[in-house]
Amino acid sequence: MKVGIIGIGLIGGSLAKSIRSSNFATELIGFDENKEHEKSAVTLNLVDHCLPLKELTRVCDILLLTIPVNFAKDLLIQLLNELKEDQVVIDFGSTKSGICEAANNHPNRSLFVASHPIAGTENTGPTAAIDDLFTGKVSIICEKEKSGIKALLTAEKLFQILEMKVLFMDPEEHDRHIAYVSHLSHISSFVLGKTVLEIEKDEQNIFNMAGSGFASTVRLAKSSPNMWTPIFEQNAEHLSKALDAYIQNLQEFKQFLDQKDLSKMHELMSKTNEIRRVLEGIE
Amino acid sequence: MKVGIIGIGLIGGSLAKSIRSSNFATELIGFDENKEHEKSAVTLNLVDHCLPLKELTRVCDILLLTIPVNFAKDLLIQLLNELKEDQVVIDFGSTKSGICEAANNHPNRSLFVASHPIAGTENTGPTAAIDDLFTGKVSIICEKEKSGIKALLTAEKLFQILEMKVLFMDPEEHDRHIAYVSHLSHISSFVLGKTVLEIEKDEQNIFNMAGSGFASTVRLAKSSPNMWTPIFEQNAEHLSKALDAYIQNLQEFKQFLDQKDLSKMHELMSKTNEIRRVLEGIE
Repeated sequence: MKVGIIGIGLIGGSLAKSIRSSNFATELIGFDENKEHEKSAVTLNLVDHCLPLKELTRVCDILLLTIPVNFAKDLLIQLLNELKEDQVVIDFGSTKSGICEAANNHPNRSLFVASHPIAGTENTGPTAAIDDLFTGKVSIICEKEKSGIKALLTAEKLFQILEMKVLFMDPEEHDRHIAYVSHLSHISSFVLGKTVLEIEKDEQNIFNMAGSGFASTVRLAKSSPNMWTPIFEQNAEHLSKALDAYIQNLQEFKQFLDQKDLSKMHELMSKTNEIRRVLEGIE
Repeated sequence: MKVGIIGIGLIGGSLAKSIRSSNFATELIGFDENKEHEKSAVTLNLVDHCLPLKELTRVCDILLLTIPVNFAKDLLIQLLNELKEDQVVIDFGSTKSGICEAANNHPNRSLFVASHPIAGTENTGPTAAIDDLFTGKVSIICEKEKSGIKALLTAEKLFQILEMKVLFMDPEEHDRHIAYVSHLSHISSFVLGKTVLEIEKDEQNIFNMAGSGFASTVRLAKSSPNMWTPIFEQNAEHLSKALDAYIQNLQEFKQFLDQKDLSKMHELMSKTNEIRRVLEGIE
């Protein structure tokens, strides 16, 4: 089975690594707009070789779409226009409503599987690809009833090889939930980083005092703006509500702080320690 | 040299571990209000034995004060009242203005060194103690000119054993800076955890979708309310300003998001990627 990876960055490259270690593909072919990334992907042995997009689309049995979500919608339609009925295309983007809606009435909708593997790091490009990025994690598939049997089985087989747990979800539900447990974290981290960098301008060497707690909290602020701007755009509605809730809770905390209401602060933190339960399932 | 550790939690216990691996102490004696912690500290071989506080104060050459900052001020004064001139007391709290001010006019001020080693985890108690917690990190000493030569040399020797880099700083400057690079991170994390837990009530299983990014951003929300409430209280003034700046920046981001101002969002994130430089020095 020839597998084509369109966009060979952190996700595409890490998919390639995991697929390589199985017998899922007889050949791994890459495409990236960035020709330096294509070269790296071959040098790093992520893919066997690269082909122009049209050619790759023609020869591959399975196409994996791992490009920023703003390009994914249009490209998916273009691919669906060209695919033959024994081919399959799976996208891996972090927002699902837009792409599902775009594909909804396409005559070849059944060749498409809309997925979101919940895995990543703050790094980008083919050199960021890592082994076992997906192992033990969750992948969401949206609107499985609109995918054909063959396409769905292919995607499930792939996620089995990646050792991922598959959950099925409505795209709107996916986007609403992911706004809270992923996209909001990225904003809180970016804005924390901004706030502290602004202070640093006036207060030299403040970062000598930053420790591992700060590092952990702002890690996501290293993430790629090219990847995240379109995610935020596509999930703006849910994310705006999440951000509202976050800001309101921060204002409440500030009120407790300004009023020196220690028991309220203590209570809020004690209740939030409950997050330990959640994190045990992740870390 | 007999070393007494008052408060055998994450910091006190980790200090004990590092001191054990050197020849700094001939004996390590512990005290903790929590008698279970005292038992654990002996079982875990963090300290040789425990003594009542009065006894420990009398027999130890060096006293290490590693208790929540709300208790540290009063206890420091009590210790200074009792110490003889060849003894030394070093505190390790995360706020420095209050304790320095409290000790300021004490006749035994010279026996005291005010320090803050920038190291920790989200865990608490003697079982949270880890090897090499302090290695390669920074410790701040405040108002060194008010410490006597012997006390200062003892503290510097200790930080050398811990393999820490020592920086000297004014307590007010310390508290202002640490508000941004440590205390604010804890609040952003606690409040993010609260916001997502609140949503979970209505949206079952949302945490199936949480990934390592979320885990990293809310890790500090596991921290102890008993430790952090008094830190926030003592640093409320600086922290309130930091929180204001953070909330304003979040509101700005939300405005960009609501207006779909992609170039502004992209610019903000690109500039904030600069945080990578800072984190390279920490991680």
